[in-house]
Amino acid sequence: MDQDQRDYEKIKMEKEDIIKKLDERDYKSLKKYLIETNEADLAEIIEEIDSKEYALIIFRMLPKEFAVDVFSYLDVDTQVDIASAVSEVELKHIVDELYFDDMIDLLEEMPVEFVDKVLEFVTPEKRKLVNEFLKYPEYSAGSIMTIEYVSLNKNFTVREAMDYIRKVGLSKETIYTCYVTTNTKKLIGIVSLRKLVTSNPDEKIVDLMEEDMIYINTNDDQEDVADKFKRYGFLAMPVVDAQMRLVGIITVDDIIDVMEDEATEDFQKMAAMTPTDESYLDTSVFTLARHRLPWLLILMVTATLTGGIIKKYDDLLGKFLILSTFIPMLTDTGGNAGSQSSTLVIRGLATGDIKVSDFFKVVFKEFRISLICGITLAFINFLRLVFISGESVLISLTVCTTLIFTVMMSKVLGGVLPIAAKKMNFDPAIMAGPLITTVVDTMSLAIYFRVASLLLF
Amino acid sequence: MDQDQRDYEKIKMEKEDIIKKLDERDYKSLKKYLIETNEADLAEIIEEIDSKEYALIIFRMLPKEFAVDVFSYLDVDTQVDIASAVSEVELKHIVDELYFDDMIDLLEEMPVEFVDKVLEFVTPEKRKLVNEFLKYPEYSAGSIMTIEYVSLNKNFTVREAMDYIRKVGLSKETIYTCYVTTNTKKLIGIVSLRKLVTSNPDEKIVDLMEEDMIYINTNDDQEDVADKFKRYGFLAMPVVDAQMRLVGIITVDDIIDVMEDEATEDFQKMAAMTPTDESYLDTSVFTLARHRLPWLLILMVTATLTGGIIKKYDDLLGKFLILSTFIPMLTDTGGNAGSQSSTLVIRGLATGDIKVSDFFKVVFKEFRISLICGITLAFINFLRLVFISGESVLISLTVCTTLIFTVMMSKVLGGVLPIAAKKMNFDPAIMAGPLITTVVDTMSLAIYFRVASLLLF
Repeated sequence: MDQDQRDYEKIKMEKEDIIKKLDERDYKSLKKYLIETNEADLAEIIEEIDSKEYALIIFRMLPKEFAVDVFSYLDVDTQVDIASAVSEVELKHIVDELYFDDMIDLLEEMPVEFVDKVLEFVTPEKRKLVNEFLKYPEYSAGSIMTIEYVSLNKNFTVREAMDYIRKVGLSKETIYTCYVTTNTKKLIGIVSLRKLVTSNPDEKIVDLMEEDMIYINTNDDQEDVADKFKRYGFLAMPVVDAQMRLVGIITVDDIIDVMEDEATEDFQKMAAMTPTDESYLDTSVFTLARHRLPWLLILMVTATLTGGIIKKYDDLLGKFLILSTFIPMLTDTGGNAGSQSSTLVIRGLATGDIKVSDFFKVVFKEFRISLICGITLAFINFLRLVFISGESVLISLTVCTTLIFTVMMSKVLGGVLPIAAKKMNFDPAIMAGPLITTVVDTMSLAIYFRVASLLLF
Repeated sequence: MDQDQRDYEKIKMEKEDIIKKLDERDYKSLKKYLIETNEADLAEIIEEIDSKEYALIIFRMLPKEFAVDVFSYLDVDTQVDIASAVSEVELKHIVDELYFDDMIDLLEEMPVEFVDKVLEFVTPEKRKLVNEFLKYPEYSAGSIMTIEYVSLNKNFTVREAMDYIRKVGLSKETIYTCYVTTNTKKLIGIVSLRKLVTSNPDEKIVDLMEEDMIYINTNDDQEDVADKFKRYGFLAMPVVDAQMRLVGIITVDDIIDVMEDEATEDFQKMAAMTPTDESYLDTSVFTLARHRLPWLLILMVTATLTGGIIKKYDDLLGKFLILSTFIPMLTDTGGNAGSQSSTLVIRGLATGDIKVSDFFKVVFKEFRISLICGITLAFINFLRLVFISGESVLISLTVCTTLIFTVMMSKVLGGVLPIAAKKMNFDPAIMAGPLITTVVDTMSLAIYFRVASLLLF
């Protein structure tokens, strides 16, 4: 049993314990049990409980601060359930205490009436901010940033800065990176808490701050933001508007989610599906079918091209019916060989390991690999066909020559197409296995029958 | 041009500027230019420079501290090149200043003589540690942890703790999470710098520390470590041995690399390749071919099963040669339908979105999705065959009935096989497109000819 499974079993047992206590109305020992549980674990337990009523009772038993922490770990669906069920006072508390980015995530999923209700609670200033944040495009830096950062005045001494951080620190998403801004909120420097802690208390912020900053623009795509985090290894990065005014920060924990979502999206695209960040189990059968059907249809129609080629050679096939028995093996091997190459190249482009300018290096590399793979596979297949299956040498030669060409063509195309797509500003991930298979099938059958015509007549 | 491409162009331009200055021996302005560049960017520029000699000159021009920072951002290959070329004094400086985990990563890649040389520099105590670290299995928590953490005594006051951190803070990988240990190095609590900064200076660490800790064992797999980081959102986590003694910490920036490597590994496995974390461009053609050939071979041999089925029905095929023209379309569609399902399920298992216990939910879901997809595809194909291609109704019915069964079988298998693999402690990622395609091909051809026999005779 692996770690994952063990964690899950633990959560399940704790869930059952809690339900048992609820059934027995043993609220006193339950409350003690709950507050001793880790917030993230408790959030998962609440998500796993089928009865919404029980989930709500548990949530309401938690001490206020603790409840908000647990709430912030919940998935958005459960958050919406709870937020819709609690009293107005409780809701106000949650909204007040949640970090701004978590609140925006929640509001984005709630019905309009609910958003209006929440906006009544907050100060006019915050209301304006909420409305601005809700306008940032999905997947932009603006949509994932938060406003709870520590901003310092450049004329502060370290001592003043530390006093200020001591006062405001608990309500900030991070205090480990502080941002130095002017009166007009222009970002002019960054200073880490580590620097503050290890510096002389009388030094000025302006002398300590890093001015050569790496920053993000509100409209940057979240994938580019993730790339910057990977590159520089920061814990947080500032987000600025076109006037270099600091409008928010993004912290590394949010980036971990982005990275996971972006990888999932690539997996989905590469398997010919419309990508979604919804959970598989929570998505309806119709939505899932809708994400898959268009691609299946396009690929099915494209695949019928192969039928045309086979038809063209039906007199050949009529004479040598045995040729048809090798069709699936040839097309499958071509598809597999192409998928290997395109997967490596697509992933390399995504991680930055391969650049568009490496085009010829990749082509030459795949050409040589395909030569090795094609010849080896053909050789082994030839021996098998002649000595085990007892096919004629000419038939075996036809199959194996085609095999070499198919593997070479698939691998070179698998290397070329993703880079070409990127060059033309398409997503390389669509140039994966399914599409390559369809392209290669047609070409390999054309080669197959051409070789057969030459060798067998 | 996307962000990635823009970053790359910028690096390329800077690289050319630097090479020009080197060619002109304009060292003064070069040095100024270099120290104004961001460390991570400079590391990338050095990696991109083809001349090892120039790379070394640049590296040697950097101020000592700055040089080590740049060094820590370099990929291991370039690190090995530089470490092998610099003088013993320079090497000693690098080794002294590098964080322990970065040094271990470097030593793991160096030839034995080199490791011995490095071990001569360090204190006997550190030497023992290095030898211990080099023994941790690859991909274990032990192999990625570092020893530069802040450990506090539980009887310290906040003031004492802050004084201590001020003294040692610059040499630690992180100071934002501090670890409370006993004299025998047993881990008894964790306290964040945020908590220290926002607490009364006279409070005792023992009253502030979190005792309900989440920790990692040295032998835990790095993938499980990454899951814990995702789950709890920590910046760092402690690593303990079997006696709960603190032996190291893992920081979130290292986990970002682990997450990327683990996703890459899954991509490779799902495209039927032996996974590797080597860069594509730096791996030799023979190594790449060796990672691909075994799987191509296995899948090729398995695919020949389909030949046997076609052969069995050669009298049927002889009479209705047209049947052979639909074989690639049927097998491709089956493969694509199966890849969609298996990809979603494999990814869901990897992210924890799907659990082994969801088996029946997944099967039922895929069954319903496949019904929708299968019937829709078959219906559209039927219309196309009868009205556009002018095929007979019976042939069209044969093809489209097979299509429904193929899609249903592929999707259900695509859902079942990854979960079954996980249940049996195999890696679900091998149950992806290529293997499913091969399995489904055989079964769909069997159905095809069975249906044809029934309808056409």
